[in-house]
Amino acid sequence: MRTTTGWMSTEGTTALRRVRIERRDLRDDDLAVRVDYCGVCHSDLHRIGGLLGEGALVPGHEFTGTVTAVGAAVTAFSVGDRVAVGTVVDSCGVCEMCRIGQENFCYEGPVTTYGGTDRVDGTRTQGGYSREYVVRDQFAYHLPDGLDQAAAAPLMCAGITVWEPLRTAGIGPGSRVAVAGLGGLGHLGVKLAAELGAEVTAQTQRARGRFDLILDTIPVAHDLSPLLRMAALDGTLALLGYPLEQAVRILDLVQGRKKLTSSGTGGRRHTAELLDFCAGHAITADVEVLPSARVQEALDRLSRGDVRYRFVLDLSDLGQPADG
Amino acid sequence: MRTTTGWMSTEGTTALRRVRIERRDLRDDDLAVRVDYCGVCHSDLHRIGGLLGEGALVPGHEFTGTVTAVGAAVTAFSVGDRVAVGTVVDSCGVCEMCRIGQENFCYEGPVTTYGGTDRVDGTRTQGGYSREYVVRDQFAYHLPDGLDQAAAAPLMCAGITVWEPLRTAGIGPGSRVAVAGLGGLGHLGVKLAAELGAEVTAQTQRARGRFDLILDTIPVAHDLSPLLRMAALDGTLALLGYPLEQAVRILDLVQGRKKLTSSGTGGRRHTAELLDFCAGHAITADVEVLPSARVQEALDRLSRGDVRYRFVLDLSDLGQPADG
Repeated sequence: MRTTTGWMSTEGTTALRRVRIERRDLRDDDLAVRVDYCGVCHSDLHRIGGLLGEGALVPGHEFTGTVTAVGAAVTAFSVGDRVAVGTVVDSCGVCEMCRIGQENFCYEGPVTTYGGTDRVDGTRTQGGYSREYVVRDQFAYHLPDGLDQAAAAPLMCAGITVWEPLRTAGIGPGSRVAVAGLGGLGHLGVKLAAELGAEVTAQTQRARGRFDLILDTIPVAHDLSPLLRMAALDGTLALLGYPLEQAVRILDLVQGRKKLTSSGTGGRRHTAELLDFCAGHAITADVEVLPSARVQEALDRLSRGDVRYRFVLDLSDLGQPADG
Repeated sequence: MRTTTGWMSTEGTTALRRVRIERRDLRDDDLAVRVDYCGVCHSDLHRIGGLLGEGALVPGHEFTGTVTAVGAAVTAFSVGDRVAVGTVVDSCGVCEMCRIGQENFCYEGPVTTYGGTDRVDGTRTQGGYSREYVVRDQFAYHLPDGLDQAAAAPLMCAGITVWEPLRTAGIGPGSRVAVAGLGGLGHLGVKLAAELGAEVTAQTQRARGRFDLILDTIPVAHDLSPLLRMAALDGTLALLGYPLEQAVRILDLVQGRKKLTSSGTGGRRHTAELLDFCAGHAITADVEVLPSARVQEALDRLSRGDVRYRFVLDLSDLGQPADG
C-alpha cells in the first residue's frame, strides 16, 4: 500500500479532517498522480450532507496533477506528464455504452472517483481532496499545453456536464442557448456555447419560445414551467443541477413539443474532445484558488452560493505524496 | 342560423341526449359539412367526465364528411367534396407557430373543434357527434381518393397525434420504435412507424436501451421508469396518452441522456402530409362502426378498453342536416 494525506468527512459536516489515507499499489495499467488542484463541486456538498451512517469520505472528482509513477503496462503516460481526472475512474469496458465511449452510462455502473467500489479489489474509492490519487490509465487525460492547471480542473466535472448536452443538441452558429443558474456549471455553459457559435443568454428572461437549448444548472428543486416556456418548438430543457425527482406538467411539454432531458458528466470520447476544444479556444473556468486547508471555508461559501464561479483547492499544502 | 342534430352531454355522463343544435350562418371562408363519420376519442371521455358545471357539450373532433355549401370566398372546396376535420378549427394565423404550420401550438390558443371559443363571435364550439359542422376552409382537408371515410376519420386525431412525434424524431429505415398501449393511437403508431421503415414492437418488453422512440399512448397515470429504461442513448419517450402532471425520476433521464417529450395533435402542414402519406400507403385505422344512436355503448366500452381499435360513429341515422 501507498499512503498519502487527504481531507475526510466522517460526520456529514463540512468540518473535514486531515487524515492519512491509503492508495493501492500500482497495477500494470495504473498511474500514480500527485494531485495539484481539485475543484469543489456542488455534488461534494450533497454527498457530505448525505453521509450520516455511510462511512468516511474523501470528496473530489475534478482534479489536475502530475504523474509520479506508472504501472508496467502503461504506454500513454510518463512520469512528469500533466494529467486531468474527472468523475469516472473505471467501467466494465464491454457493454454497449462503454464501447461507444459513454462510460458514464456503463450498464454495470461506472466506478465513481470517490464513494465508488473498485472493480478489482472491492475497496471504496476516495477522491481528489488528497495529495495522491491512483487511477487506471484509461481514465486519466493528458492536460493540453496552455491550459492552466488550476483553472482547468473544473472542466472535468462542471465542464463536461454542460459539454455533452451542448454537443448532443448540435449547438453551433445560429443556435440560441439560455443558461439558468450561473455557478460552476452555468458559467462554463455560457463560455462553451458562445465559443461553439451560439447566441447565449445567461438571463432567465421570459423570452417565450426562443431557445433551442436551456442548460438548467440550478442546484435545488424548482418550478420547470417558466423554463420550458422559454424553449423553442422542439427545444430542449436539460436539467443538470438537480438530478432528483421532479414534478413535470406534461402540458408544458405538449405546447411546442418541448423535450426534457438530463445527463451526467461524460464519457472518455466527449471528455477528450472537450479538453481539445478548450485548449484550442483558450477556455478554462473562472476560479478562486484556496489552500486545501481552507476546504471548510470553500464548502460553506459554496453552500451559500458565494463563489465566482468555482473554488479550486491547491493541494500543495499537503506536502509531497510520500509525506502523508 | 342553421340547425342540425347532435348528441349532447349535459350532466357529465355518457348518456348523451339527441338534441337540436345551431350552426352559424356561413361566413365568406366557411364550409358547411355533412358529417358522415366521427371517431370516438379517449379525450371525449375525459371531457365528458369533467363536464359538471361546465355546461352542455357535443363531443367529436375527428370526422369525415361531404361539403354541402361554401362561403363566398371559398375557392379550394366545392359542394360534394369529401373532407376531413380534426381537433383544431381556427387559430390566430399570425404568431410564430401559425406561420410555420403549427396551428396546434398557436400562442393565442387554437380554437378546438368542441368546447372552444369561436374567434369571431365568441360562441362555444360544438363537435362532430352531429350531422352538420360549419368550419373555416383552412381547417378542412381534402380526403384523398382511396381512403375509406369511416376508417380515415381517426387519422384526424389519433393518427396525427402519433405522426408528429414520429416525424419530429426523424423515424425511418433503421429506426427502432416501441409503442406502449395498443388503442386508437397505439395501433396507428405501429402502422405508421412500420410504413416509415422502422423496426416496430408493440410489446413493452424490457429491452434495455433499445428504442430510438417510444410512443407512450397509455391513457392513465403510470410509472415512466420502465419505459425510459427501454430508450436508447439519446432516445425519446413521447407521452401521448396522459398529458397531465407526472412525477419524473430525473435519474431515469440522466442514464443515457433520455428525453421526455409530448405533443398534441398537429398543425395543418403535418396533417396534410399525414393524409397524403396514408393515401399513398393505404393506411387507415382499424375501426368498429356503430350507428350514432349507440354512442353511449361506444363510450362505455371505450372506458373499459373494449374496442379494436377505434369506434367510429355513423351519423347517417341523424338524417340530413336540415332534418334536425
